[in-house]
Amino acid sequence: MISFNIQQPDSGIKNALVDKINNLTKPKGSLGTLEELALQIGLIQQTLSPQLCHPQNIIFCADHGIADEGVSVSPKEVTWQQTIHFTHGGGGVNFLTHQHGFGLKIVDAGVDFDLPYERGIINMKVRKGTRNFLHEAAMTEEEMNLCLERGAEMVKRCEAEGSNILSFGEMGIGNTSPSSIWMHLFAHIPLEQCVGAGSGLNTQGINRKLQILQQATDNYNGSKSPKEIISYFGGYEMVMAIGAMLQAAQDHLIILVDGFIMTACMLAAMQLHPAVKHYAIFGHCGDESGHKLLLDAMGAKPLLNLGLRLGEGTGAICAYPIVDSAVRMINEMESFQKASITKYF
Amino acid sequence: MISFNIQQPDSGIKNALVDKINNLTKPKGSLGTLEELALQIGLIQQTLSPQLCHPQNIIFCADHGIADEGVSVSPKEVTWQQTIHFTHGGGGVNFLTHQHGFGLKIVDAGVDFDLPYERGIINMKVRKGTRNFLHEAAMTEEEMNLCLERGAEMVKRCEAEGSNILSFGEMGIGNTSPSSIWMHLFAHIPLEQCVGAGSGLNTQGINRKLQILQQATDNYNGSKSPKEIISYFGGYEMVMAIGAMLQAAQDHLIILVDGFIMTACMLAAMQLHPAVKHYAIFGHCGDESGHKLLLDAMGAKPLLNLGLRLGEGTGAICAYPIVDSAVRMINEMESFQKASITKYF
Repeated sequence: MISFNIQQPDSGIKNALVDKINNLTKPKGSLGTLEELALQIGLIQQTLSPQLCHPQNIIFCADHGIADEGVSVSPKEVTWQQTIHFTHGGGGVNFLTHQHGFGLKIVDAGVDFDLPYERGIINMKVRKGTRNFLHEAAMTEEEMNLCLERGAEMVKRCEAEGSNILSFGEMGIGNTSPSSIWMHLFAHIPLEQCVGAGSGLNTQGINRKLQILQQATDNYNGSKSPKEIISYFGGYEMVMAIGAMLQAAQDHLIILVDGFIMTACMLAAMQLHPAVKHYAIFGHCGDESGHKLLLDAMGAKPLLNLGLRLGEGTGAICAYPIVDSAVRMINEMESFQKASITKYF
Repeated sequence: MISFNIQQPDSGIKNALVDKINNLTKPKGSLGTLEELALQIGLIQQTLSPQLCHPQNIIFCADHGIADEGVSVSPKEVTWQQTIHFTHGGGGVNFLTHQHGFGLKIVDAGVDFDLPYERGIINMKVRKGTRNFLHEAAMTEEEMNLCLERGAEMVKRCEAEGSNILSFGEMGIGNTSPSSIWMHLFAHIPLEQCVGAGSGLNTQGINRKLQILQQATDNYNGSKSPKEIISYFGGYEMVMAIGAMLQAAQDHLIILVDGFIMTACMLAAMQLHPAVKHYAIFGHCGDESGHKLLLDAMGAKPLLNLGLRLGEGTGAICAYPIVDSAVRMINEMESFQKASITKYF
């Protein structure tokens, strides 16, 4: 069984980083979030001259048993259709990976379809979709461990290719439902504040979804152990993302966190290893009701707020140029001393 | 005397643009602000396949007579020092223009210093700094017209080089003061809500600045004509930016609006030609107190909120990749029909 060893970055270099940032030719603090990011990345990489290398986006795709209950407005077949679609280059995530020079890895974590792996989809399938957590655990403990291992394995592959910054995305019709339940159980927020429209439910649909999720949590008679909650309600794509996040943090990579579902996965990862958060940059606060609430509960400040609710890693990748700007700032801006400018405030 | 002819973009193409955006392979509306931007840009360019060509940032630099009153924590010499510094490539704006492939034009609109034009600074100097508007008009009507003409001239140069999207920035110690007064007089917001810390005043300094600006507006006994208010309180760099914005709108270019000062210039431009707003994309809500209030009053929704308060065009340029994403979305994403995906919502 896989285990992770995640440490907070050593803060010994912090003062030197702050000094360097404060002596760039600008009023102190005037580059706001870019300065905060430069500090965080300098700490993660333990250097005054951080670099971003070969960013990649990994999309974990899987189906959910709970989708049988009609919790999503989208038909289940969209999961496999979109998974294949990503390989054509015409999806929402594709124009963004092209724009920002990201590698793209499409992972079948548990799609309920025989996918054409010859098109470059990576076969990590655990099972053709989880079980319906209204009636039973979505996955077994063995399946959960397999997901954590395979998510970690994907990160190691990217590292071997030279990546030190990764974003994670998902495709899985129904996966706002487990996200809402994790948010409710891990962040202790009333369930009705955790449930939203997903890909486009109306008010009636949201109420129905809430009833089903309430019933599912009422039915749950397992322990409060994070691992048990993760496996009982989780999706294969989501638990693989957790394994990926934990491996990335262990190896001191930068993690770009996408929308509601990936934020819920980061929340779950933090239940297992709180220090994972030091490696996370939250890319985006999406339109899904509850996402802002969740970010606030986690003390996370997202870089963007563009009303996206597509998933696939889109919100994380959109935020990448801001992260790149922070790294360029600390490397390319001159100091007051070097530029011979009167230091101003 | 220069005059502008600015029309709202023809809305005849609007339905076709909305149809194209709604048929991309994503739940309708799920790319949020990117969808709104694609529509706006399609309208500006009157095409279903918009393009961004040779983005450039023009920094207008000038000094302000009001700086003699101690309204800024930064010494006046910083204006000329930073203007020269931009030519070295080590300033705040430079790493961003490099990152996003922007051209950079540095314009001496009225810096109180003999600048080394051989370094590529463009000489549009009207005068070595404005007069002190605590006691008299900052500039004459002739100087204002010259600024509008020279700003427009800079845009025509960029167009001749192939640009169809421009951002405007500024460098001018003291220029939050005229911005606050324009905001007060044009948006009818109490002066105390328009005055902030600039490059770093403390509470005492802000109170002193407010007193001086209150005195200046009390002393003003001119008309309520926008042009008179613009010339009485404005800076040369600011009025050149207004001329540039108006020319850009007349020629159907996209205008990226930077921070507090450039937002105040857009507000002033809107007093002269309200339709200029259709060509504006607001890049950033900065940290300067009052900027959010001003954007709200203008009904403007900024793309970023990163706590920047540096000016120079930095907030606008940081937002460029979002605009680029919107254009790539409408051009590169496939339609449901073409991708053979069940249309979902």
